[in-house]
Amino acid sequence: MLLKKRIPAFYIIKKIRLEVLYVLITGLLVNYLTAKYKNLIPEMPIAIPAFIGTAISVILSFKINQSYDRWWEARKVWGSIVNESRSFVLQLQSFVSAQKQSEIKEIAYRHIAWCFSLGQSLRGLDATKDLDKYISQADLDKIKKHNNKPLALLQLNTLQIADLKNSGGLEVFTLVQINTTLVNFSNAMGMAERIKSTVFPQTYRLFLHFFIYIFVVTLAIALIDIDSFFEIPLLLVISSAFFLLEKSATHLQDPFDNRPTDTAMTTIATNIEINIKQLLGETEVPEPLQPQSFYSL
Amino acid sequence: MLLKKRIPAFYIIKKIRLEVLYVLITGLLVNYLTAKYKNLIPEMPIAIPAFIGTAISVILSFKINQSYDRWWEARKVWGSIVNESRSFVLQLQSFVSAQKQSEIKEIAYRHIAWCFSLGQSLRGLDATKDLDKYISQADLDKIKKHNNKPLALLQLNTLQIADLKNSGGLEVFTLVQINTTLVNFSNAMGMAERIKSTVFPQTYRLFLHFFIYIFVVTLAIALIDIDSFFEIPLLLVISSAFFLLEKSATHLQDPFDNRPTDTAMTTIATNIEINIKQLLGETEVPEPLQPQSFYSL
Amino acid sequence: MLLKKRIPAFYIIKKIRLEVLYVLITGLLVNYLTAKYKNLIPEMPIAIPAFIGTAISVILSFKINQSYDRWWEARKVWGSIVNESRSFVLQLQSFVSAQKQSEIKEIAYRHIAWCFSLGQSLRGLDATKDLDKYISQADLDKIKKHNNKPLALLQLNTLQIADLKNSGGLEVFTLVQINTTLVNFSNAMGMAERIKSTVFPQTYRLFLHFFIYIFVVTLAIALIDIDSFFEIPLLLVISSAFFLLEKSATHLQDPFDNRPTDTAMTTIATNIEINIKQLLGETEVPEPLQPQSFYSL
Amino acid sequence: MLLKKRIPAFYIIKKIRLEVLYVLITGLLVNYLTAKYKNLIPEMPIAIPAFIGTAISVILSFKINQSYDRWWEARKVWGSIVNESRSFVLQLQSFVSAQKQSEIKEIAYRHIAWCFSLGQSLRGLDATKDLDKYISQADLDKIKKHNNKPLALLQLNTLQIADLKNSGGLEVFTLVQINTTLVNFSNAMGMAERIKSTVFPQTYRLFLHFFIYIFVVTLAIALIDIDSFFEIPLLLVISSAFFLLEKSATHLQDPFDNRPTDTAMTTIATNIEINIKQLLGETEVPEPLQPQSFYSL
Amino acid sequence: MLLKKRIPAFYIIKKIRLEVLYVLITGLLVNYLTAKYKNLIPEMPIAIPAFIGTAISVILSFKINQSYDRWWEARKVWGSIVNESRSFVLQLQSFVSAQKQSEIKEIAYRHIAWCFSLGQSLRGLDATKDLDKYISQADLDKIKKHNNKPLALLQLNTLQIADLKNSGGLEVFTLVQINTTLVNFSNAMGMAERIKSTVFPQTYRLFLHFFIYIFVVTLAIALIDIDSFFEIPLLLVISSAFFLLEKSATHLQDPFDNRPTDTAMTTIATNIEINIKQLLGETEVPEPLQPQSFYSL
Repeated sequence: MLLKKRIPAFYIIKKIRLEVLYVLITGLLVNYLTAKYKNLIPEMPIAIPAFIGTAISVILSFKINQSYDRWWEARKVWGSIVNESRSFVLQLQSFVSAQKQSEIKEIAYRHIAWCFSLGQSLRGLDATKDLDKYISQADLDKIKKHNNKPLALLQLNTLQIADLKNSGGLEVFTLVQINTTLVNFSNAMGMAERIKSTVFPQTYRLFLHFFIYIFVVTLAIALIDIDSFFEIPLLLVISSAFFLLEKSATHLQDPFDNRPTDTAMTTIATNIEINIKQLLGETEVPEPLQPQSFYSL
Repeated sequence: MLLKKRIPAFYIIKKIRLEVLYVLITGLLVNYLTAKYKNLIPEMPIAIPAFIGTAISVILSFKINQSYDRWWEARKVWGSIVNESRSFVLQLQSFVSAQKQSEIKEIAYRHIAWCFSLGQSLRGLDATKDLDKYISQADLDKIKKHNNKPLALLQLNTLQIADLKNSGGLEVFTLVQINTTLVNFSNAMGMAERIKSTVFPQTYRLFLHFFIYIFVVTLAIALIDIDSFFEIPLLLVISSAFFLLEKSATHLQDPFDNRPTDTAMTTIATNIEINIKQLLGETEVPEPLQPQSFYSL
Repeated sequence: MLLKKRIPAFYIIKKIRLEVLYVLITGLLVNYLTAKYKNLIPEMPIAIPAFIGTAISVILSFKINQSYDRWWEARKVWGSIVNESRSFVLQLQSFVSAQKQSEIKEIAYRHIAWCFSLGQSLRGLDATKDLDKYISQADLDKIKKHNNKPLALLQLNTLQIADLKNSGGLEVFTLVQINTTLVNFSNAMGMAERIKSTVFPQTYRLFLHFFIYIFVVTLAIALIDIDSFFEIPLLLVISSAFFLLEKSATHLQDPFDNRPTDTAMTTIATNIEINIKQLLGETEVPEPLQPQSFYSL
Repeated sequence: MLLKKRIPAFYIIKKIRLEVLYVLITGLLVNYLTAKYKNLIPEMPIAIPAFIGTAISVILSFKINQSYDRWWEARKVWGSIVNESRSFVLQLQSFVSAQKQSEIKEIAYRHIAWCFSLGQSLRGLDATKDLDKYISQADLDKIKKHNNKPLALLQLNTLQIADLKNSGGLEVFTLVQINTTLVNFSNAMGMAERIKSTVFPQTYRLFLHFFIYIFVVTLAIALIDIDSFFEIPLLLVISSAFFLLEKSATHLQDPFDNRPTDTAMTTIATNIEINIKQLLGETEVPEPLQPQSFYSL
Repeated sequence: MLLKKRIPAFYIIKKIRLEVLYVLITGLLVNYLTAKYKNLIPEMPIAIPAFIGTAISVILSFKINQSYDRWWEARKVWGSIVNESRSFVLQLQSFVSAQKQSEIKEIAYRHIAWCFSLGQSLRGLDATKDLDKYISQADLDKIKKHNNKPLALLQLNTLQIADLKNSGGLEVFTLVQINTTLVNFSNAMGMAERIKSTVFPQTYRLFLHFFIYIFVVTLAIALIDIDSFFEIPLLLVISSAFFLLEKSATHLQDPFDNRPTDTAMTTIATNIEINIKQLLGETEVPEPLQPQSFYSL
């Protein structure tokens, strides 16, 4: 997540340097050709790039809104993981009989592991990294057999809670209530995976790029009377405006790609760890994760 | 679902070749007529096609957004099938008494069959294809009597779970919790069928095409002074922009039509199969489905 | 619901013939007056109708989107009736003791009656039509005393299910689960009635028409230099574009008005009947309803 | 709620008479000044008011959509009150033992009182008006001690239902199911109060008015060459278009203000009364509320 | 929350004074340079700033809508806290045995403390301020050990309710129903924290500012022929329009920042206190919080 801190200019410029270069080449080429074949080139009414501009703004506006929705949905999913994690521990403490303190702690720690593992897994990183701080070696061995590590952790917790009921530590009715929370974890995990695995309709991106280049060409011809010393920067500025918006939207679309615009999953998981440990009455809790220079992960 | 891989140009061009041809003919015809009856044709202010352009962009923007919503809803429905499928198996393992392992496996396999069958059924293909890998011949015979095969599979699972309770393998409380999951499957199935069976308001499509042709005609007259050598390509480019957007939207609208833009139901069902089998502790699981050249189904 | 089949031109033209006529008269009148009082009429910059056009497109875009939302919500309501109807029968079969088969069938048939009755009632037609195929004469007599026939049918089912519990055919816990489904039917019914009974804000429609006429008048004056032989058709085409969009939106707004754009409630209710009867194991089921020429009801 | 009947012109004109007057004065003043200081006033390109027009249409479009959402949410809240009220009575009849008929009637009547009281309270009117038709004097005395009368009525019903359980008329399971319905009433009440008490961001309204006046001034200068006999009406028409849209949106924003555009709460509450009394088997029910000339409350 | 009262002009002007100053400097600089190097500066078509204006209005419209959604979601979260707080007390009174009046009061008072503490915590103020009016010193000591004070209060209530069940004051079934309400409190708290901690995508804000300055520069060059006595105010007015909209949106985005546009959390918490105390039958309740001059907190 980008912070309110000053975002370095190079971060933004780097995003569109290739596109700006292409526009520069296109603009120079059009300039050269219109200079050479001046008689052949008709007067281009400025309305023509304006029509292309309409199509561009329809797609841009669509893309910016929908990509924000994906980004916000990703954040909501992780928000609900926070909420349900707290409720989960409170439910264990309310419903499980007092003799089972060690099981409660084991389950709660395994749940912390699930949060970190899910974050790593969504980013395409090692989903078992550092999990030995929270779960036993036996657990680690079990989950390594699964393609989907967080799902394996969820299964371990689900089965241990079922065992608590079978061994009399939990009534069937409260088991069902806790199960509802476990279903919510499964939903949250699946929703995040859905956002991760669903490619935003690619054709719109292709069209948008295509339209911007058409826009640049027609605008360049329309501005034929202006000194190219002024025309080229103008083309660059206007097309950069469109490309910058497109790029920002594209980055928001995929909030689990290990980029500065990501949902801050590691930060959130660390907060969950702090919350859970304090709910368990522990005093040794980690520090909240410090952000990077201009973003937090 | 279209992937991030390079989408072949012919795939996109093929989409609108007919429309482009019509625009070409229209443009040539208008050119010929305006050349022949030059005195009769008044000067057309560029504002006239601009007004038509306003109506076009209002519909386009509406259509792009709503068709995306349909496509995204379709994806969400299948996402929820993934989540609930996992929870379903975990609930069976938590709630059903340990002696009933074979029933759990039978139900879980039948559920895998339901996922594949629903995908086939939504695409209008054979809804019983390859189901013998997951269900018995007796089951197959039963579901063949039904119009709606996935519903028949759901009924078989529902009744077997009710039997589990009657035979003491499940308490009434936990039966109700599992039933809630079954209701969610029924909802997901019905939601997908709703998207499949509801035709997007056709009048907007008609109007959009009508307006684009009017736009082409008025623009062609307005650009009467430009050499037709330049004018016709201009008309084609601008109208293609509108047609491409319309076509992309139209394809997203119907995400269960066995097209490259479909929801990737076979891929998802295969992932569900892998998840379920690993939750059951099986080691022999299928490979994730490999995508086609530029899309996955 | 309009189908993908070719929609007859007269259906569309009929929608806006009156408006087009008024625009024609307005155009001719403006033409006559501007010709007669040419010296008095100042030059109208084309920007003036353009400003009016802005207001028109703001309302149009609002109206098209919100009316689609109403139409889609109506479809969702009936989609949820489909889903819950299937779950309802499955729940009866799971939860009610096996000796009560005849009661299950009676309740399921009464539910089919509810679906058809609700569709008729929403369309303002006879809500008891053909119900004798599904319910007894005694039931028919009871519901005739009610203003709201579908609600009366829902009450009969609710009370019979309560009786099942009192007579030992249903446990209290599963009664509560089925009751949740009944609450969903009540919600779906109320949501459809809400859409039916809530008039879309009328002022926007008035303003839209008012603005379109102002637009026509100012545009006619702005185009004063164009031969009226060309000007009048231009006015008609542009204003038709706006009127067509407005009409289409207006029809989508009210999806329960017994029009071709209606939610296809009779088709859906017939499908529910087929599903329910096959779930009950019956082999004699009706055929799916065949659509009208270009729409289905 | 405004009906489909013909809405009187004075109702609409009355809404914006002040704004139109201000615009008239502004227009005349600008005309007078530009005539007097003709040499000092530069030529104003029509693009300047066009830029202001862009800002205006961005806010208008935002405001119209969001105010419609508030209005529609208000209608949905009351729609859910209708649905839950029916379910509430059906649940009482299903779950409460048959000997407690008089308690069921007392609770159902108190619920009718709650509907009317909530409507009055939201409109800022006397929330105890005519309640003696539905509740006892003892109840009336109790609720008068509360700031929030409908909440007091809800408490009375909640406590009486708890008593039913304590006196054996209701099982704990079904008590919880009815309690869920009571929670929904509390939610609906709170949601309506939220819409009532939350002022729509006022700054947008201020800016919109400010921009429209700037627009009028710049447009008046831009149209300096047109005869003021034509210019002033033009200014009035275009600015009225914007003001009318703004006013309509403003009225929809606050759907509980005892205005013609209100949610028709009294009509809805009367319908609930009819539904509930017929569900109780009563034959003496009130007539549906007849609408006012062009609206219903 | 800003009230309908007259908002002081300085409050609005203060918001954008810096931006207006920068625009003034930019405008003067451009004017000076274009005057000095008149021959070098080409004629700038007004279409160039118009294209920039398109990009500006796409972002503005996006930003205004999404920031409103954040603001409205924040208000909804607090609305649901109101609703659930009322239901919470009613559930305690319904379900907890009559002998436990003092526990009910203790829990209800602790819940009032939770409301105030959450409001303070979201605003970054002291989350334990004035809590001694509602909770014991022992409680205060406990929550001081936690990073997240409201979560600590929620834990205390959850555990005391579990104790009520263990000591026979509550059945397991009704415990679960109350637990659902506690889960809703946890969700509401987490949702508010999510809005608080998620920075709105910063790049859009940067681009918007950047584009507005580009717009100002190009417009200033395009208006080169207009007397700078008129041009500078025009630039200021148009760019202020854009900046004002941007600022308003930015303030709505962050509704928990202790600003006049905040969600009125203290007012809402006071109303919850009044409601809860009157539900408990207390007669000594605080006055509703009086608003500040033009806003309430």
